[in-house]
Amino acid sequence: MRAQDVIRKKRDGLSLSAQEIAAFVQAAAHGTWADYQLSAMLMAIFLKGMNAEESATLTRAMADSGKRLNLDDIPGVKVDKHSTGGVGDKTSMILAPLVAACGAIVPMMSGRGLGHTGGTLDKLESIPGFRVNLSEAEFRSCLKSVGIGMIGQTVDVAPADKKLYALRDVTSTVESIPLITASILSKKLAEGISGLVMDVKCGRGAFMKSRSDAAALARSIVRVGTDNGLRVQALITNMNAPLGNAIGNALEIIECIQTLQGHGPKDLEELSILLASKMVFMAQIAPDEAAAEIAVRKVLANGTALQKFREMVQAQGGDPAIVDHAKLLPHAPDRHEILAQSTGFIQELDAEELGIAGMLLGAGRQRAEDCVDHAVGLILKKKLGDAVQQGEPIIEIHHRAEKGLAEATSRIRHAIFIGDNPLSAEPLVWETIS
Amino acid sequence: MRAQDVIRKKRDGLSLSAQEIAAFVQAAAHGTWADYQLSAMLMAIFLKGMNAEESATLTRAMADSGKRLNLDDIPGVKVDKHSTGGVGDKTSMILAPLVAACGAIVPMMSGRGLGHTGGTLDKLESIPGFRVNLSEAEFRSCLKSVGIGMIGQTVDVAPADKKLYALRDVTSTVESIPLITASILSKKLAEGISGLVMDVKCGRGAFMKSRSDAAALARSIVRVGTDNGLRVQALITNMNAPLGNAIGNALEIIECIQTLQGHGPKDLEELSILLASKMVFMAQIAPDEAAAEIAVRKVLANGTALQKFREMVQAQGGDPAIVDHAKLLPHAPDRHEILAQSTGFIQELDAEELGIAGMLLGAGRQRAEDCVDHAVGLILKKKLGDAVQQGEPIIEIHHRAEKGLAEATSRIRHAIFIGDNPLSAEPLVWETIS
Repeated sequence: MRAQDVIRKKRDGLSLSAQEIAAFVQAAAHGTWADYQLSAMLMAIFLKGMNAEESATLTRAMADSGKRLNLDDIPGVKVDKHSTGGVGDKTSMILAPLVAACGAIVPMMSGRGLGHTGGTLDKLESIPGFRVNLSEAEFRSCLKSVGIGMIGQTVDVAPADKKLYALRDVTSTVESIPLITASILSKKLAEGISGLVMDVKCGRGAFMKSRSDAAALARSIVRVGTDNGLRVQALITNMNAPLGNAIGNALEIIECIQTLQGHGPKDLEELSILLASKMVFMAQIAPDEAAAEIAVRKVLANGTALQKFREMVQAQGGDPAIVDHAKLLPHAPDRHEILAQSTGFIQELDAEELGIAGMLLGAGRQRAEDCVDHAVGLILKKKLGDAVQQGEPIIEIHHRAEKGLAEATSRIRHAIFIGDNPLSAEPLVWETIS
Repeated sequence: MRAQDVIRKKRDGLSLSAQEIAAFVQAAAHGTWADYQLSAMLMAIFLKGMNAEESATLTRAMADSGKRLNLDDIPGVKVDKHSTGGVGDKTSMILAPLVAACGAIVPMMSGRGLGHTGGTLDKLESIPGFRVNLSEAEFRSCLKSVGIGMIGQTVDVAPADKKLYALRDVTSTVESIPLITASILSKKLAEGISGLVMDVKCGRGAFMKSRSDAAALARSIVRVGTDNGLRVQALITNMNAPLGNAIGNALEIIECIQTLQGHGPKDLEELSILLASKMVFMAQIAPDEAAAEIAVRKVLANGTALQKFREMVQAQGGDPAIVDHAKLLPHAPDRHEILAQSTGFIQELDAEELGIAGMLLGAGRQRAEDCVDHAVGLILKKKLGDAVQQGEPIIEIHHRAEKGLAEATSRIRHAIFIGDNPLSAEPLVWETIS
């Protein structure tokens, strides 16, 4: 099968056969097509789309391009959550302990931060000693003993996705529903899970800025996941403003611990419980979502989930003492406060601008190869809708010797809008699709 | 300017600025974008198109990516003809002497045959000693002394086109009007001509199978050429059946000489005179096309054009004795006749099938790197519409030791259809666009 014939077919808007899709995916994994042929195909898919059957086939072929874990020997139903990425989105580290404390297994393969969005792996690595690059044996051992394993994408998982993802980034073929669907779900299928809760972030700080784009992706993921034998629910959640109060790696870990201790920010606690409840229900531990929520709230209230978090940290080489002694986490030497310039109500806290501000301080990456400073970041002293007096602190900047401070400050000033009237609250969850 | 930003803009269907187009073209010429970015851009252009202004800018940028000849020091108006390629299309070698004999200068940069279509360079190289790879000084000297120079695309002409052309071939992005337009016209602009007659072949043996595609290309070439300061006329000509009687390199040279001697096939003579007349008018040698045609017919009838052909052959290192002694050209050792299987009228002589038959005998190339056999080919003993008796020869195959003969014979049989009724003649020229 010649590359140009398969490209031509998609270019002309025709549906590809399973054989043709397999040829493309195998070519990406093994280099049998030239990169310029892969990228021409990606652009053709971007512009001509794929139907549900093609998407499902592409996803399966990408999962099959590498190793697919079989976790059947580990007792318990395996469930995971995936988010399309946001600012201050730290639910993974909260819900994994909640769900594992309820008795499900959470094998989680996460990513790193890029641009204005943070990444679970970076946040975890702010814990002294914590290792995300576990061997498969270590990963299995964590799942067996704790019920949680949090790692990065291993080299042998979905190699076709790695290749195509790198090409999409430099050829402007990222924002394609079938390609995003296949990229996310191929890795999730490879994890060996049977249920997935998908958190599609929507708004200023999200990859999907519009409700219609977010809904299209959510529907595609539910459809393609289901077609590949996964139980999937997708939520479209609000990412106009950051989630919780902390932005920055160690600062977010502290906020996760606070939430598991029962005194986290309301929005973060609420979303974590909601996502965890769906996972617990999906794991068939509770007869319905209401019962699942009761179970989740119980392990949160009685400290079992916090204990799970502690065990998870220890199992992956981290120092569990951080749970009780936040000062063991890296912390930035310097502080700077952004004060309200007028009295009124906070009507805008632009998540993208605040995420970029964090990145400029060193908490995130401009390019994939950049290093992150785990200590720096932002703490929101006020949330969307809060009343403020002129001169009151709105955001506390944790910086290191003013690195990036001037530009971050300017970004933050642009991110904040104080108006005269209280804001009618936006919902945390826009829509649930299953 | 980042590659992915320019790609994104075209991907989203927006018009590119001159700076963005220049960045793309410079990147193709100098390798500053990766090949996978160039091909993603080609697919985006293929699927989203380009407006007339973008096309003109792309064409100019591609011409400017390499050397542009300045022929101002050579007296006379420089005009050229370009064809999109056909079967038996040998008008270049006839009209160049006709036009030069009338006093215009014909600097012609031609290509080689590929697939079912032949190439001027291959045909010329069947003349013993003939060199198409002249240095610029030699080319100028030919133009000064004879008024004709027939060469291949030199390495320093339109390097961006060379790169993009190679990529388009392997990424299924060939059949794009703006990309074809830019590819053809960038080389023509680089030749230093002021007038171009464009022969857009249309039909079974042509690149453009439909009238609407051919018209779109013709309009684009006229528009973009004019926008770049060229006088351009485009003709859409019939390529359902081969032009003339000969297919194959030396066989076609013989037919060119016969035509210049006044006893060539009617269709070939008529089209050559028509194209030559338009060029002569464009060169401002005659006040109108009718007067130009009178001038062309005169140099054909009085032998001046044949003499020009002889001079052209000699100036480029070829043996001019071939004009009077066809046996000095390579000739195939073996003959095979295809006979009419029934009595009636020839209603079909499929140019593409006959072109492929010639290629299979060795007259053409399956791949760009193949060699050609200058001697082999086909001679049509009957033309479209002719009456035939069962058993009469329709085509004479000139082959070498039966190489490709069996498959060529089968192709030829499929190419011929004999019906009961005479055919209503199809026009030689479908449309003229200027």
